[in-house]
Amino acid sequence: MPDGTLVIIGGHEDKQGERAILREVVQRVGDGRLVIATVASEQPEAYFDEYKRVFAELGATDVAELYLNDRAEALGCDKVRAFDGAAGVFFSGGDQLRISSQIGDTPIEQKVRQVFERGGVIAGTSAGASVMSDTMLVRGSSGESYRIGDLHMAAGLGLIRNVIIDQHFAERGRIGRLLGAVAQNPRQLGIGVDEDTAIVVDRHRFRVVGSGAVYIVDCNGVTYSNIAEASPERALSVYDVKLHVLSAGDRFDLSARRPVIDTRCPGTGTAVRNADEK
Amino acid sequence: MPDGTLVIIGGHEDKQGERAILREVVQRVGDGRLVIATVASEQPEAYFDEYKRVFAELGATDVAELYLNDRAEALGCDKVRAFDGAAGVFFSGGDQLRISSQIGDTPIEQKVRQVFERGGVIAGTSAGASVMSDTMLVRGSSGESYRIGDLHMAAGLGLIRNVIIDQHFAERGRIGRLLGAVAQNPRQLGIGVDEDTAIVVDRHRFRVVGSGAVYIVDCNGVTYSNIAEASPERALSVYDVKLHVLSAGDRFDLSARRPVIDTRCPGTGTAVRNADEK
Repeated sequence: MPDGTLVIIGGHEDKQGERAILREVVQRVGDGRLVIATVASEQPEAYFDEYKRVFAELGATDVAELYLNDRAEALGCDKVRAFDGAAGVFFSGGDQLRISSQIGDTPIEQKVRQVFERGGVIAGTSAGASVMSDTMLVRGSSGESYRIGDLHMAAGLGLIRNVIIDQHFAERGRIGRLLGAVAQNPRQLGIGVDEDTAIVVDRHRFRVVGSGAVYIVDCNGVTYSNIAEASPERALSVYDVKLHVLSAGDRFDLSARRPVIDTRCPGTGTAVRNADEK
Repeated sequence: MPDGTLVIIGGHEDKQGERAILREVVQRVGDGRLVIATVASEQPEAYFDEYKRVFAELGATDVAELYLNDRAEALGCDKVRAFDGAAGVFFSGGDQLRISSQIGDTPIEQKVRQVFERGGVIAGTSAGASVMSDTMLVRGSSGESYRIGDLHMAAGLGLIRNVIIDQHFAERGRIGRLLGAVAQNPRQLGIGVDEDTAIVVDRHRFRVVGSGAVYIVDCNGVTYSNIAEASPERALSVYDVKLHVLSAGDRFDLSARRPVIDTRCPGTGTAVRNADEK
């Protein structure tokens, strides 16, 4: 299992105030280089300038940009130099298919993976968050209930296994589409991340940072769904979903598929979070 | 237990096409009078004219309007005449507090309750849906995760017990606020109804009608929540919520707090809905 850290951000993270999420990224990069990958966007300039400024303010001394005009550049030798001495990679927002189609199975992707396996941090916001799983959500209506046949999935970077990540979660009313995605194969745990909210994943555990909530959709115990049976315009039915809502400081164990709670007070019947637990 | 039926609609029900939801109302009114209560709205005229037309097209022959300029009218004798021969009442949308504050504990409310207890239908859309429970949601942010202290509740008409109803559910991203409301007291089952979707409640069971989904939030098994502990601006944490998503034709047992499924195929391990079950 890689020694690195993932910082998976639901979009619109704070860039003016406390900046708790971006601070997590900088802390883990230390004196190493932070690569700001703007490949998800067609207009990367503004993204890079803003992130460069914020990361510098937070103490990142060595920041490099990775932008690709096309897949050919990812296959060449020039762009990999951005990763010299890299301890972290930050994927900005845009279109997750731009990331996967341009860097998937290229030397650039290998470099990203190396940073991760050697203990570095891979962070991503919005599209940069979705792309981290093996199977990713690429399109599906927000703000309505899931219509079977409405959802589009694709292969992601596979830095985190057996989860599907959705972003701008409460803000865009995406519980419906995440339920649809997870019901397709309950092996996958659905993780919906609000704006200005992130999960910081170390090995099989994560911790929540930021001002919003993180929704965990677990279809493992589902007793009925119509996902495979009904017509494409039909609304989804799915019974016995388990849902956890986590906020700042809460921890989750991806192996156990459970929030980390401590039952030091069994007599009271009340579960208490163990603030000391790492 | 009353013999009547509740038709609880998430707003924006179809008024042009198949009109499956409004048809349910008309079928149950039969030759009796249907009272269209526009008391939730400050501009009731357009509501009444449109519903009068649609209900007439669907076969309702006797339609009366109930509108109140103030609570004094609800306390008087004039307006109760609208209920002569009433077999159904339909509450249009607007503000649920207008309904409860104007008719709560008045002769008008008694008339509504009589229609229900004598086997009539009480229907309501949007605000008219929310007002049916004993405790109702009156305000709370949509499209974001629940902030403790953000939610406002009030006493509703109490035609259905131990539930909290929310409407325009997926469309306005309201899972966060419904979770917050239900976490306050898990005795209450949360029922989130999409637009153009309704639940038809007969005694302790309901059936789903319409094009969207109905979300059932059950906090009975919750192992941890921060609802009573954290500051008002804090995002909600709540672990081990049970969530069911139902669509047209699905049935739910409010006493058992379970979708109605049939396990006629126990050998297969697959639950099958019993389409024949009433």
